[in-house]
Amino acid sequence: MAEVGVIGGTGYTGSEIIRLISTHPNQELVFATSRSKEGERIADHLPNLETFLGDLKFISPEDSFDVDLVYTAVPHTKAMTYVPDFLDRGIKVVDLSADYRLPAQKFEEVYDTPHIAPRNTAVYGLTELNREKVAEADLVANPGCFPTGALLSVLPFLKNKDFARSTELILFDSKTGISGAGASPSKVTHFPNVNGEVTPYSLSSHRHLAEMKMISSAYSKSNKDINIEFTPHIVPIVRGILTTTHMFIDEDSILSKSDIFELYKNYYNSSRFVRIKEDVPSIKSVVGSNFSDIGAFEISKNRIIIISTIDNLVKGAAGQAVQNANLMLGFKEEVGLLSGGMYP
Amino acid sequence: MAEVGVIGGTGYTGSEIIRLISTHPNQELVFATSRSKEGERIADHLPNLETFLGDLKFISPEDSFDVDLVYTAVPHTKAMTYVPDFLDRGIKVVDLSADYRLPAQKFEEVYDTPHIAPRNTAVYGLTELNREKVAEADLVANPGCFPTGALLSVLPFLKNKDFARSTELILFDSKTGISGAGASPSKVTHFPNVNGEVTPYSLSSHRHLAEMKMISSAYSKSNKDINIEFTPHIVPIVRGILTTTHMFIDEDSILSKSDIFELYKNYYNSSRFVRIKEDVPSIKSVVGSNFSDIGAFEISKNRIIIISTIDNLVKGAAGQAVQNANLMLGFKEEVGLLSGGMYP
Amino acid sequence: MAEVGVIGGTGYTGSEIIRLISTHPNQELVFATSRSKEGERIADHLPNLETFLGDLKFISPEDSFDVDLVYTAVPHTKAMTYVPDFLDRGIKVVDLSADYRLPAQKFEEVYDTPHIAPRNTAVYGLTELNREKVAEADLVANPGCFPTGALLSVLPFLKNKDFARSTELILFDSKTGISGAGASPSKVTHFPNVNGEVTPYSLSSHRHLAEMKMISSAYSKSNKDINIEFTPHIVPIVRGILTTTHMFIDEDSILSKSDIFELYKNYYNSSRFVRIKEDVPSIKSVVGSNFSDIGAFEISKNRIIIISTIDNLVKGAAGQAVQNANLMLGFKEEVGLLSGGMYP
Amino acid sequence: MAEVGVIGGTGYTGSEIIRLISTHPNQELVFATSRSKEGERIADHLPNLETFLGDLKFISPEDSFDVDLVYTAVPHTKAMTYVPDFLDRGIKVVDLSADYRLPAQKFEEVYDTPHIAPRNTAVYGLTELNREKVAEADLVANPGCFPTGALLSVLPFLKNKDFARSTELILFDSKTGISGAGASPSKVTHFPNVNGEVTPYSLSSHRHLAEMKMISSAYSKSNKDINIEFTPHIVPIVRGILTTTHMFIDEDSILSKSDIFELYKNYYNSSRFVRIKEDVPSIKSVVGSNFSDIGAFEISKNRIIIISTIDNLVKGAAGQAVQNANLMLGFKEEVGLLSGGMYP
Repeated sequence: MAEVGVIGGTGYTGSEIIRLISTHPNQELVFATSRSKEGERIADHLPNLETFLGDLKFISPEDSFDVDLVYTAVPHTKAMTYVPDFLDRGIKVVDLSADYRLPAQKFEEVYDTPHIAPRNTAVYGLTELNREKVAEADLVANPGCFPTGALLSVLPFLKNKDFARSTELILFDSKTGISGAGASPSKVTHFPNVNGEVTPYSLSSHRHLAEMKMISSAYSKSNKDINIEFTPHIVPIVRGILTTTHMFIDEDSILSKSDIFELYKNYYNSSRFVRIKEDVPSIKSVVGSNFSDIGAFEISKNRIIIISTIDNLVKGAAGQAVQNANLMLGFKEEVGLLSGGMYP
Repeated sequence: MAEVGVIGGTGYTGSEIIRLISTHPNQELVFATSRSKEGERIADHLPNLETFLGDLKFISPEDSFDVDLVYTAVPHTKAMTYVPDFLDRGIKVVDLSADYRLPAQKFEEVYDTPHIAPRNTAVYGLTELNREKVAEADLVANPGCFPTGALLSVLPFLKNKDFARSTELILFDSKTGISGAGASPSKVTHFPNVNGEVTPYSLSSHRHLAEMKMISSAYSKSNKDINIEFTPHIVPIVRGILTTTHMFIDEDSILSKSDIFELYKNYYNSSRFVRIKEDVPSIKSVVGSNFSDIGAFEISKNRIIIISTIDNLVKGAAGQAVQNANLMLGFKEEVGLLSGGMYP
Repeated sequence: MAEVGVIGGTGYTGSEIIRLISTHPNQELVFATSRSKEGERIADHLPNLETFLGDLKFISPEDSFDVDLVYTAVPHTKAMTYVPDFLDRGIKVVDLSADYRLPAQKFEEVYDTPHIAPRNTAVYGLTELNREKVAEADLVANPGCFPTGALLSVLPFLKNKDFARSTELILFDSKTGISGAGASPSKVTHFPNVNGEVTPYSLSSHRHLAEMKMISSAYSKSNKDINIEFTPHIVPIVRGILTTTHMFIDEDSILSKSDIFELYKNYYNSSRFVRIKEDVPSIKSVVGSNFSDIGAFEISKNRIIIISTIDNLVKGAAGQAVQNANLMLGFKEEVGLLSGGMYP
Repeated sequence: MAEVGVIGGTGYTGSEIIRLISTHPNQELVFATSRSKEGERIADHLPNLETFLGDLKFISPEDSFDVDLVYTAVPHTKAMTYVPDFLDRGIKVVDLSADYRLPAQKFEEVYDTPHIAPRNTAVYGLTELNREKVAEADLVANPGCFPTGALLSVLPFLKNKDFARSTELILFDSKTGISGAGASPSKVTHFPNVNGEVTPYSLSSHRHLAEMKMISSAYSKSNKDINIEFTPHIVPIVRGILTTTHMFIDEDSILSKSDIFELYKNYYNSSRFVRIKEDVPSIKSVVGSNFSDIGAFEISKNRIIIISTIDNLVKGAAGQAVQNANLMLGFKEEVGLLSGGMYP
């Protein structure tokens, strides 16, 4: 049994980590921090977990502790104030913020703020891409929610030399639940503004685009620069992201649906949490679970349409963090995460 | 054409008044106030009304104006700071706050704050109850949203001497859309807290209960003190209140469904905005409209079940305000309000 | 490891049993039946469980099998055609239909249809009420969803001689998610008819009322006939029931909130799945879980308001069925059911 | 006052026409047909319009009538069985089905069924495109809901020779409310299948794509064949379509946001129902109204992102039909349609 802690236990991702660990057979929650709720019972803040956490109380992040691994579930620029100290004390870290996803210089450009504590050793924690490196890492940068669903839906293409070369344009049109906007009320999360509405935002400039581009470029088997575009939309649901990937490829290189299906099946052959389907996947099949369902593979002239779904709080955040932590702590990646999506 | 203004144009009720007046044949919007948006185009705040309001801008409530009637759509305790001055200047007022609904002493008790400007002449603006008095009033206190739907569903009983006498207990169990909580984001209106949830609140002590009790008592044809209970619940919809009235009466005085139906039909015979139905009314039939649909009239031993629906922002607030203003300005009460509910 | 099967695997309750058993450590799903989907992979019908069920296919209910226990998740009048045969073959049964909840004569009256196979030995499976009897039963009648949430919220009163005697009227006003209406599309479940709407139905005559009355009467410590009333409402959510219990008691016997809280705490002291709270419980705290949260305990004169929440498909159906099956098979009741609700 | 009738009064578009005409100053509803509801009061089927329609009853489409104009709101292949007869009798027709949108041969190919009654004189009723021709037409083919929102968002480009020539690819990624699927319950409209879900469908082959291509090609000022792609998604709302137009143009011809804004402002200068905005338009601003809001105009390299919104039942169907009928009957196009969207 490994001992773990959560920095930032009141946000949605921190709370979701606590939920997942509350029934985890190999990870034990030793503490969770909250400045605003310090000293209060965690279960008073998370009544769904009442009777699972006893009287465990939120502590201050300044309180002393010794654990095997810490999840940092705090906003960007905050994580970097904790991470180096934890690493120095021999504590492994899964960072759910954006602080270690990009090279420091790129981070400063995209987030328009200085990076005060770069670490070159951070491993990008898209588990299906970096399984072995994650297992040996001290610091894992957990991917953003949009990049997780988007990248999983194109990795088999990018990692194939021929296909990567023939790809001309990848356009991710994503539809996300509002929980991605966090637990703090705002005009954007106000029920009358979300219900009955669809809200496109950061139409051409979402920060996750930089992450998608960097990873696509770093891991692509082609040295061609692929044109990647991304537009996210808020839809009136709480959990889940459905990404419609419109991939345009060199017309002479077009594939059949069954070829693409086989390509994906093979690529994710040993990935427990990616399920390849011939038909269109649904959000409900993955809600509450760590799965990503990927399917459709329809073709219109030189356009290939791929649909992927994830629970943004699980595979898109807390679940993938626990999956990474499992590997870092020497467990099988699926431990504590094996449950299907809630349906209906 | 009468000239009117709105004090408090950015809240939901103020905005809804503006929407209704923007196409009103006999009332012209001359101004709307907003401290925070002073000088900004109203249509930039209400894009649904773009092209209807020209470049009309929000003004400060301190700016000078001269109109026939003002709607005060501000929180309680604020309205009383404006109303006496308007009345002194000969401007009629429909007040949508709680400030003039109760006698001053009762107001102070229920709202736990001093009343700085009582007016004994305020008429309680449940139009169907006080049509004639409203027409002659300078100041109308527009009813609360819950009292409107609740009282309309029991008025025919209370105004009948025999039935009022045999009534033992009236329990209003109301289900309301979240727009009743206003336009300002809060934990209560946060989409993930409303969606998938039902939230009972003020279970035994909602302020509107005092209003219901006072009106029931003042207008009942019996001098018996009727036991009135009220519990509201937020359901994940934007507009609408459905009130389930559980009325318990002296078992010997129980009526048949058809008798009750006739009683209601007759009572509301000349009320354009109350529609009596034999079956269960729906919220969708009234959303966007000034109607209240009332029906069901099922009987279980000594319990009579009556269901009423309103759009909380229209008949429960802005629509009834315009209906009252129509009368105060010498027009027919339905002018500018005749459209059916949105369905589906 | 006990071997179990599901009769009726495509309805919501049958599907939910399969979901719960797919990760159960002590119950193994050996088969599930479906006439319409016979021969098809279960996971093609339940894509959320893809990779959990291998290639297990739906069989016909006429196919032969031998298991320790069968869940009958079929409509009323269908279950009674299977149950006697299973019992004769030594197979234990948890019946999720209404067929064995009421005495045969009462069943025939309420459901207006003959009972072709009465069994006097059926135990009413409200686990918290009948834990010991369930453990020894061959046939358990799993309670209806509304009775589960309603009865749990008043049991501590009914089982106390003094309090039961002072209770005059219990009115359950319930708000349910639409999944209670089943997996088959109908006018009632049509999205535009549910969204933005609240739909009261069976206002005074829902069949679950007979179940509530019978159990209240059978288990009450008072021989006084308690007046029980019930009105259900559909609200636009998928899972969950919130029941507002308005309990009216003899005014001289009124209790304090803290006394009631203690009464409930003590009564449910050893019940893992009932959590007593001082404040108002939420649906989100129990969605996806087998918990019932009960709280509020507000008092208005002689009215006590109690709020209870359950997931209608879990504690209100499949979860309680698995809980009962655990006991019947010799396991602890909570095995395989220990996860908190999904939040947010 | 013109007299009009509706063939097919129980579907959502037929019902919406009735709603709009019930308060129209210049069009009077003389009849509406329904085979299944023949002889029943229309208001019993449309309780939102109770008191607006008196006791008008549904008639059979075979019943005789004489009116100035008929709206045919029936499924495709049904309209063509009525239209020629009406035209022969001198009755003008606005057809809301797909029967007269495409040339007969194209119709037969796309809808895979013979066209039994082609009329070459049908005018494509995208009012903003064909205002003058509509005014003189006997038969107007009302556009599909998706083509309406999509085409309005690119018309200013297509009608400009230079811009049309530089356009390489137009991808419409649309998000629609479920009312587009009609009033009949099905698996697709089942609340638990829509709520919490996003459902892409007809990913590359929706029939409306042929309509978009034909109109784009017919009206484009360039003889270049523009590559048009379209993927629709169902989102959990009742009314509204938001279309995200991803337009890719020759990189050397890229425009500034303000240039595009001016282009659109000028093009729609005299179109009362198209509102051009600099920021992202919302569905709520147009729900219940005949407006289409178009805006955003963000640029990412050679991609221009345009967002358009409509109410699919109003501007996308019944509202545009009434708008066209106004012109055909000699009235101003906006008569009876001037109300802003419902907000919130």
